[in-house]
Amino acid sequence: MKIFAKCFVLIGGAIFGFVSISFSQTTMKVDYPVGYRLWVHVKSVTVAPPTPNPRNHGIHHIYANELAMQGYKTGLFPDGSIIVFDLRQTQTNNGVTKEVSRSFIDVMQKDGKRFEKTGGWGFEEFPGDKTDRTLSNEQKTACFTCHASQQEKGFVFSIFQE
Amino acid sequence: MKIFAKCFVLIGGAIFGFVSISFSQTTMKVDYPVGYRLWVHVKSVTVAPPTPNPRNHGIHHIYANELAMQGYKTGLFPDGSIIVFDLRQTQTNNGVTKEVSRSFIDVMQKDGKRFEKTGGWGFEEFPGDKTDRTLSNEQKTACFTCHASQQEKGFVFSIFQE
Repeated sequence: MKIFAKCFVLIGGAIFGFVSISFSQTTMKVDYPVGYRLWVHVKSVTVAPPTPNPRNHGIHHIYANELAMQGYKTGLFPDGSIIVFDLRQTQTNNGVTKEVSRSFIDVMQKDGKRFEKTGGWGFEEFPGDKTDRTLSNEQKTACFTCHASQQEKGFVFSIFQE
Repeated sequence: MKIFAKCFVLIGGAIFGFVSISFSQTTMKVDYPVGYRLWVHVKSVTVAPPTPNPRNHGIHHIYANELAMQGYKTGLFPDGSIIVFDLRQTQTNNGVTKEVSRSFIDVMQKDGKRFEKTGGWGFEEFPGDKTDRTLSNEQKTACFTCHASQQEKGFVFSIFQE
């Protein structure tokens, strides 16, 4: 009976641990920002040589959902705020530069509980038009380390371009 | 009494004519697109030398209201559709090009009755962040002449960039 009780405790503990880890991993994930192309366009920047890191070359647009727009106005981004950095490759012909394929999108999602350790913001990257998450934990930490410099602006670099 | 009647007719006619012309001029005017920066961002293009006409150099964004977004999907733009071409000057530093001041906005407003003679679209330009209308009738005609080439797309050049 004692052996049965020990087994019960061990198995129960293992199940609890597995469920806890799975739940934690799920809640720590940034959601794919469905429909973000219909959100508000915050600003755009084009990046080309001699700027290093060709991965970031192209034109990027910043989009914000309605809650994030409150943050751009007040500096306080409420939970549910989502900001998308949408990087597209470009082609130039006779001085006219047009957008072509999407390189990736970077997403910031505000949730004070889920992302408590990183200023309330979760960070993720989705390649092209896919919904696969590609950032390692180290890369997410690097995102936050950089954004921490903007703490007085709610950890957000961009400013809404009127 | 006859002289009085003639005067009455003349003055009445003059008033009617004045009111008609004023009404016609008002109804023929394109409205300033209040709040367009919160509308959907359709696409962006940057224009630089060697493209001629420095007036058009910079980055332009196209914005559409909800009704116009129906048109981008179906090719049929309902009355009330408004499309804004927002041209901003740019500054480039080490390959990074940022937006600065607004040059002007060009506006297309759909109203089958008001703008019957130009495919149902009214055309106007507003300089910088001002609400003054600057297009002459000849320039409006030139707008339509160019857009007429896109009749099968509802007289609209741009395509929504997913």
